[in-house]
Amino acid sequence: MPTYTPPTDEMQFLLHDVLDIGNAGIPGYDELDRDFTAAVLDEAGRIAAEVLAPLNATGDAEGCTLDNGAVRTPAGFREAYGQIAAGGWIGLDADPAYGGQGMPYLLNTAVGEMFVSANMAMNMYWGLTHGAMSAIHVHGSEAQKALYLPKMIEGIWSGTMNLTEPHCGTDLGLIRTRAEPQPDGTYRITGTKIWISAGEHDLTENIVHLVLAKIPGGPEGTKGISLFIVPKFLPDADGNPGPRNALECVGLEHKMGIHANATCVMSYEGATGFLVGEEHKGMRAMFTMMNEARLGVGLQGYAQGVVAYQNALAWARERLQGRALGAPANPDGPADPIMVHPDVRRNLMHQKSLVEGARAFTFWGAQLIDRAHRGHDDRAEALISLLTPVIKGFLTDKGFETTVLAQQTLGGTGFTRAAGLEQFVRDARITMIYEGTNGIQSLDLVGRKLPQDGGRAMRDFFEIVKGFIRENEGDAELKSGFLDPLKTASKDLQAATMYFVEQGMKNPADALAGSYDFMHLFGHVCLGLMWARIARAARAGLAAGTGDAAFLTARIATGRYYMARQLPATGLHLARITSGAETVMALDPDAF
Amino acid sequence: MPTYTPPTDEMQFLLHDVLDIGNAGIPGYDELDRDFTAAVLDEAGRIAAEVLAPLNATGDAEGCTLDNGAVRTPAGFREAYGQIAAGGWIGLDADPAYGGQGMPYLLNTAVGEMFVSANMAMNMYWGLTHGAMSAIHVHGSEAQKALYLPKMIEGIWSGTMNLTEPHCGTDLGLIRTRAEPQPDGTYRITGTKIWISAGEHDLTENIVHLVLAKIPGGPEGTKGISLFIVPKFLPDADGNPGPRNALECVGLEHKMGIHANATCVMSYEGATGFLVGEEHKGMRAMFTMMNEARLGVGLQGYAQGVVAYQNALAWARERLQGRALGAPANPDGPADPIMVHPDVRRNLMHQKSLVEGARAFTFWGAQLIDRAHRGHDDRAEALISLLTPVIKGFLTDKGFETTVLAQQTLGGTGFTRAAGLEQFVRDARITMIYEGTNGIQSLDLVGRKLPQDGGRAMRDFFEIVKGFIRENEGDAELKSGFLDPLKTASKDLQAATMYFVEQGMKNPADALAGSYDFMHLFGHVCLGLMWARIARAARAGLAAGTGDAAFLTARIATGRYYMARQLPATGLHLARITSGAETVMALDPDAF
Repeated sequence: MPTYTPPTDEMQFLLHDVLDIGNAGIPGYDELDRDFTAAVLDEAGRIAAEVLAPLNATGDAEGCTLDNGAVRTPAGFREAYGQIAAGGWIGLDADPAYGGQGMPYLLNTAVGEMFVSANMAMNMYWGLTHGAMSAIHVHGSEAQKALYLPKMIEGIWSGTMNLTEPHCGTDLGLIRTRAEPQPDGTYRITGTKIWISAGEHDLTENIVHLVLAKIPGGPEGTKGISLFIVPKFLPDADGNPGPRNALECVGLEHKMGIHANATCVMSYEGATGFLVGEEHKGMRAMFTMMNEARLGVGLQGYAQGVVAYQNALAWARERLQGRALGAPANPDGPADPIMVHPDVRRNLMHQKSLVEGARAFTFWGAQLIDRAHRGHDDRAEALISLLTPVIKGFLTDKGFETTVLAQQTLGGTGFTRAAGLEQFVRDARITMIYEGTNGIQSLDLVGRKLPQDGGRAMRDFFEIVKGFIRENEGDAELKSGFLDPLKTASKDLQAATMYFVEQGMKNPADALAGSYDFMHLFGHVCLGLMWARIARAARAGLAAGTGDAAFLTARIATGRYYMARQLPATGLHLARITSGAETVMALDPDAF
Repeated sequence: MPTYTPPTDEMQFLLHDVLDIGNAGIPGYDELDRDFTAAVLDEAGRIAAEVLAPLNATGDAEGCTLDNGAVRTPAGFREAYGQIAAGGWIGLDADPAYGGQGMPYLLNTAVGEMFVSANMAMNMYWGLTHGAMSAIHVHGSEAQKALYLPKMIEGIWSGTMNLTEPHCGTDLGLIRTRAEPQPDGTYRITGTKIWISAGEHDLTENIVHLVLAKIPGGPEGTKGISLFIVPKFLPDADGNPGPRNALECVGLEHKMGIHANATCVMSYEGATGFLVGEEHKGMRAMFTMMNEARLGVGLQGYAQGVVAYQNALAWARERLQGRALGAPANPDGPADPIMVHPDVRRNLMHQKSLVEGARAFTFWGAQLIDRAHRGHDDRAEALISLLTPVIKGFLTDKGFETTVLAQQTLGGTGFTRAAGLEQFVRDARITMIYEGTNGIQSLDLVGRKLPQDGGRAMRDFFEIVKGFIRENEGDAELKSGFLDPLKTASKDLQAATMYFVEQGMKNPADALAGSYDFMHLFGHVCLGLMWARIARAARAGLAAGTGDAAFLTARIATGRYYMARQLPATGLHLARITSGAETVMALDPDAF
């Protein structure tokens, strides 16, 4: 059985020493002093470790079952969900006007990481609710907000996103689900939606489906898509669930992982739907959910890496095989712990440097969201919009990679179900696929986000990197171990950006063929920046004599590994990008 | 349901045009003309596609069951195994003196790829037999050979390897299984062995276990290990299985993949064993099996990539989403096949260039084995000994990567069980672990193989690369697209080798910390060499007007992709290697 240890110390260090949230000047952050965040994180960590984690393997083994349209979640899920809802965790960062706790998104992110590490499949039941709440909050009418948000925040009702249909996922312009206007102002929704996470379950008294559909006679393609609220039970004006709506879960997907989350085929058979926002403007509203979901999926990716790494480390400390170079580490035992071996250590450092860097990147992204939304800062909004596909694509690729490396640390044991590592691999795998495959993320990055506003957000990013280097160059140790490699990597990113600007107009295929490598190049520079910021904070703490010296030293050592052994990947990505589309597209499709 | 298409055309091209087996001067190769190999490959391909592949998903779903010491394999396995045995495939390359067909190992390798692509879990039942046969053939007495080999070659008896125990896998010096000499010259074997593939099943009338054990009073560590034949049923002198031996399968592992292969916990309770070779010389004999098994596992890795890629390609041709840049490819349809998109194409080219390069590398390795064994060529023996950990480690890492990329091509569908891609991922995963984890392969490469005979085999490898470049530099297109990148990559490999030679003596940790990257660097140079050889053969075919021009052109285009987009990884690996052990080992084990 794998174990989970909440990394609250690392989170506290990130929040207060690296991100310096006390001085961030973001509305609402003034409440977040060290004691307060410690209390919240400790309680969330306790729930994660004691309530959620013990149900992760059992939920995977049992899975969900569908019987006559009703989905049963695994044993223990109802009780655990009840504790999450009762604790107010679902509305932690929701609007207090509707019963939320009004905390910053950053705090919600830290809590979310622990819940996801402990039990990703279960967390999705309320994770999807969160996205649906955001869409209603931003795009719904006052009446819709008043009717739905309090119930969702309380966890009595849950939410879903309905986009994909059997013949289209990425290309939403092809959807066929119809929404026919009715005299009473509602719409009749008819169609089939697939991959609906938490589309049906036994955890809440109602489920609020957000459904993309086309109103007949509207514009072609994505310009004719509208968004509807389609509740499982139609609520009356007081919010009491009334008659059953004409929708049903008609199938569950049998999947590689996240068995405990019900992935539903939903059939809408003339169901009553309520328009959200304006007709034909559904894509905009759906992007609100999708952008949030993409950040959440990036978090899922590295959070699986976090728990996988913890278990790999525990094994590497206990498993005795072979002897260390030089003096034995365990002279009284039959062999040394495998952690003494350089190749095992390399593997562990690889995992550790990825997940800690990923956490810092994700927290920084969450802070940017708070700055954008709470501080009404357009530049922060544009920057996080640029970084969202990087967080989703890079961190899920690296999160999955981490779970595979962690599994590898255990050798044959890692391949067994009992050790639990293989579940982290299977669960993490979906994060590279859903909410837009990572290939789609890279196209969003290169095709949409990069050129926005003439590339302003990208320039802002480079300014942040340059500014950081400039401010800290006086620290010789920081310079050689962190700033110099960061500068090299950042130059690779600039060269790639220039390549796209120059080639993109002449031959867009060149940019598209390099998009995936660009996403990874960008991700590495972001993690390089994060490690440089972490190292600066750790050095400051050491210099001031505050904090745990061993803890701070460990951060610097881990960062130095990243800079020396991971960050140089930027050169490879640049080489691939600048080789252009020619070799990628040369082979005739029929000749494959 | 996934499909499988035997790649016999590609194999024929490799055998006759790239490896030029007709002129290789290897005893036994004179029989292998084009028509002969075509007939063998066609028949093997037919069996793979029609008999083995249809049982792959069902075998995974059903798995093996253990009841009172007896293991039941999935439905259809007995019949399919019977066809393989009756067709003489198990002894295809075995000694005719014992009923084998005496074919070269190379042909066996080509056949094996198809069987493994079609059904890896099933193929292991006779794959392990093959390794056990080799150990008995090389190290057994004449009487042992006469008693066991004919039955194993015929497939009436199967074989296993018993190395690992619960407390030790890699570090075999720690094994506790005892072998007590008996007055009649046999040994009483007592102990527990784990991860025994095909340790118990219902496919054969007897199972020949090869077991590592220690004779009490012998030397400490691996120098005190002996190898024993421990049959499930003790045969009489005529080879009739007699009384049941005191051994039992006491458990099956529940695993991430290869569900249809029984991974057994074997308990030996005073079982009768027969010494193979000399007392305390068991490791040498086991290495015969292990080296062969490592090549076989490398093949398993890329063979899963082959079938995964085939299914990704089929999906990319059929799935309609979005439109091509420029003119639509499918103007009458609602959208274009996703294959038109540069990022999808990049993913497919990545897969294709890896699996085809891996096949060439593996076939070349098999040819080296034939040259070593049939031609009694020590240099070939030393070279394949050097390359074995690269084939195992690099090709299984890349094979697994390919299955993951192929799964990604299918988007959400790839995550479903029905599509079958997720099984290829789960099955391929074990190849990075068993027969020595890939970390162990890299240590074998750097610590043992590289320095052997003063580095002679490595110098031989460099001479092969240089010789090839020298001979072909006159071809300008080959030079720019293939030879120049190969030269650059080979220089990276030389630099890494020099680093190990220089640093290895001063600080062995530097070499060990870079071993994994060295294995990958080496693997890339090998695949680069293979693609250069393939391109030369294809260009010769085009110039001569022989062969299918579209087929030959496709080989060159795929190779050019590899050289431009994959081979530059050597620079990254070199950078990591030369960063040394410092950042890898800096963090105190307690500070992780």
